Amino acid sequence: MDSITIDTINPKVLKCEYAVRGEIVTIAQKLQQDLKDNPGSHPFDEILYCNIGNPQSLAQQPITFFREVLALCDHPSILDKSETQGLFSADAIERAFQILDQIPGRATGAYSHSQGIKGLRDTIASGIEARDGFPADPNDLFLTDGASPAVHMMMQLLIRSENDGILCPIPQYPLYSASIALHGGTLVPYYLDEQTGWGLEISELEHQLNTAKSNGIDVRALVVINPGNPTGQVLGEANQREIVEFCKKEGLVLLADEVYQENVYVPDKKFHSFKKITRSMGYGEKDISLVSFQSVSKGFYGECGKRGGYMEITGFSPEVREQIYKLASVNLCSNISGQILASLVMSPPKVGDESYESFSAEKEAVLSSLARRAQALQDALNSLEGVTCNRAEGAMYLFPRINLPDKAIKAAEEAKTAPDAFYAKLLLNATGIVVVPGSGFRQVPGTWHFRCTILPQEEKIPAIVSRLTEFHKKFMDEFCG
Amino acid sequence: MDSITIDTINPKVLKCEYAVRGEIVTIAQKLQQDLKDNPGSHPFDEILYCNIGNPQSLAQQPITFFREVLALCDHPSILDKSETQGLFSADAIERAFQILDQIPGRATGAYSHSQGIKGLRDTIASGIEARDGFPADPNDLFLTDGASPAVHMMMQLLIRSENDGILCPIPQYPLYSASIALHGGTLVPYYLDEQTGWGLEISELEHQLNTAKSNGIDVRALVVINPGNPTGQVLGEANQREIVEFCKKEGLVLLADEVYQENVYVPDKKFHSFKKITRSMGYGEKDISLVSFQSVSKGFYGECGKRGGYMEITGFSPEVREQIYKLASVNLCSNISGQILASLVMSPPKVGDESYESFSAEKEAVLSSLARRAQALQDALNSLEGVTCNRAEGAMYLFPRINLPDKAIKAAEEAKTAPDAFYAKLLLNATGIVVVPGSGFRQVPGTWHFRCTILPQEEKIPAIVSRLTEFHKKFMDEFCG
Repeated sequence: MDSITIDTINPKVLKCEYAVRGEIVTIAQKLQQDLKDNPGSHPFDEILYCNIGNPQSLAQQPITFFREVLALCDHPSILDKSETQGLFSADAIERAFQILDQIPGRATGAYSHSQGIKGLRDTIASGIEARDGFPADPNDLFLTDGASPAVHMMMQLLIRSENDGILCPIPQYPLYSASIALHGGTLVPYYLDEQTGWGLEISELEHQLNTAKSNGIDVRALVVINPGNPTGQVLGEANQREIVEFCKKEGLVLLADEVYQENVYVPDKKFHSFKKITRSMGYGEKDISLVSFQSVSKGFYGECGKRGGYMEITGFSPEVREQIYKLASVNLCSNISGQILASLVMSPPKVGDESYESFSAEKEAVLSSLARRAQALQDALNSLEGVTCNRAEGAMYLFPRINLPDKAIKAAEEAKTAPDAFYAKLLLNATGIVVVPGSGFRQVPGTWHFRCTILPQEEKIPAIVSRLTEFHKKFMDEFCG
Repeated sequence: MDSITIDTINPKVLKCEYAVRGEIVTIAQKLQQDLKDNPGSHPFDEILYCNIGNPQSLAQQPITFFREVLALCDHPSILDKSETQGLFSADAIERAFQILDQIPGRATGAYSHSQGIKGLRDTIASGIEARDGFPADPNDLFLTDGASPAVHMMMQLLIRSENDGILCPIPQYPLYSASIALHGGTLVPYYLDEQTGWGLEISELEHQLNTAKSNGIDVRALVVINPGNPTGQVLGEANQREIVEFCKKEGLVLLADEVYQENVYVPDKKFHSFKKITRSMGYGEKDISLVSFQSVSKGFYGECGKRGGYMEITGFSPEVREQIYKLASVNLCSNISGQILASLVMSPPKVGDESYESFSAEKEAVLSSLARRAQALQDALNSLEGVTCNRAEGAMYLFPRINLPDKAIKAAEEAKTAPDAFYAKLLLNATGIVVVPGSGFRQVPGTWHFRCTILPQEEKIPAIVSRLTEFHKKFMDEFCG
């Protein structure tokens, strides 16, 4: 009998794609090894990763207060020692004591409740209330290892077959297309309008919903990513209200990816959670099923490696909630350090706390620098021939459109690669800059983009700008002829 | 249009069961709240959790060295401070420096390689080599948030439809039945022989494989849990060789759950990894597809809340490995603290290290106490009328068989509950002792069991024994009449 081959594995796995860690990254890793083994072997001396929202891999420093508390909770037996007061801030020590008191038996190494430690959920619920001005229930919170497992859990719950559809923005973060493919559902695309700064039009939602219905698709949920990934837009309040009305009218679960809620860079935009919007419209549990995803990986903290996050679920029947609880239980619980960090992120130091000033300075330094980097990269991209780029109002990305010359598109066809992947590979080989081709996020057919993070260290931005500019000029010279 | 109801969610989710956190635990939590609100309201003053392998929730202390290293890696900026040397052992400080050097950019808050940090995988691979005496390749390792996500990943890869079967021991750890149900496959049971100490007979494997085949099931893999959960047996070397031959002959992937590899309590048994067994038989990559699961949650460390673990995969084609890599990539990476802990577990302090003696003392204290607790509970269970219990050679559980009187079985039928769940509920309500009914793990039809961990604090064992004995006597008096 034969063993397992590529032809006999689950075809849903084969179908799933995840561009953020795709071929371009593999090439980049090889180039990096090359540079290490043979310095000077390429026309650049380092790989500049602009492909993934991973701030600390690019030298962003963790928030001191958060790490102090995590360290103390990892090794509580030092809490009473005198040396500890010399090493840690007083409010970090106090917070660690509070958190330990919230953990049954102070057992930081025990599995927790399947939804996460109750006391930490209480803290997070208070943080949500402070953010929104509306009540939050700790029993609505499910703490997860980053936001990704929460998204999978909801897709697993909602998708029964390929006849079940999930409305997703295009361009989208490929977790959604990957998760829908793995669970055997159908991604129902709705296109964001690049002309209006990646606007989300209700008429487009209606059109795509009706098209899907007429194709026999039972559309179950609408994914909204706000602030947008890879597109960087921040939704306006009026637009959010329209989206809520649409979901309510159509009986769709609103899956709100709000992991970039702290990443807003423009004074004319503000983050509003969909929970706040629905409640401010007077809608409650009976009116709409809403899931909000949050993560410790983004914001000004960028603690991707800690794998903390949560989802807040409202508007589900007790029977359905029980099923979600069961899904959470099969994996026992999320990691406790991530749970603690999620509570810290939603309840940071306050005015008067010893760490407040240094915390605020660290936070402000990260966010203002990100805003400057976004602006600099955006300006540079918009100055390139045939490139237009909406502003990064929020999140961590720019998603410029490249009007590729026909000759480049033909060359890509000959190389059996998508034209934007062709561009991204040439860019990488010429400059060491790693971006993700737009085709990995999907896009309006016939348009080409790439996603570029705003995360490289600020002092490296000028080099990125000049290398990119030089490359692009040569590229256009070569393929416009 | 209607929103999501219990009738419109994914039926695979409905079908999935996970008894370890089922109804009995919910009742126990209510009783615990009751005891807190109204002390003296029940005939016991505390809930004694014997339902789940969660050592630190029952006051087992973490291994000091491991926690020192974790704390230092969480807050590396204290590494150079003089106070740190007063608080942490020298080898913990040294190890933290080594680990930080293994992490690209020393970024403990960054997403890692999808398989886990390469340097940590090198350490784990060395630990596997030292354990087995055969080479291990860091590229074969996938670090995961505990073992559960690794099991799901393999089920997701292998199961295409309900016509795909996975051979699982009965009784089994319900993660397997849950994961197979969630991925839409068929659990093909093979029964462990209770008479021979939960023996695994090849004739039974052959019989069940052939039965499944004749029912049109394509059996893809064999799950072996060694040491056994919930059954506590440790496989003999000769038996393991037979299992390897069977998988090789039948082209089955061998999924080896080896998370209890450090939990062996009897002098006549020893843990051998299936990797070591296959290699010692002269079989390599071409001969058999083998996956070994390991976790930081078990052993003498019991770090359940840290969610660390790995799987070692060998004998898969490059194309299939690429698909496994893609699945890992969709979730980005496992949590870094869990990754670090997995490396520590596979590479603990060595003779000559400052922490070696205290580490060894802590390890020995946990393991010898677990052995004594296993013996005491096993003796007590075997002294009960109508109860027989195989020894816990390893793992953390006893799985006694109860010969329930007909009258009890009838009473259970009237209460619309399985007879062993009926027994477990009465036990809980009378004594506060929480066990998991055997029906949650499946068992030979018509036989009844429960799973009882050996984890309650040693000083509580006498009380558990006397309460259980008293309850059982009353139960038999009531239902034998």
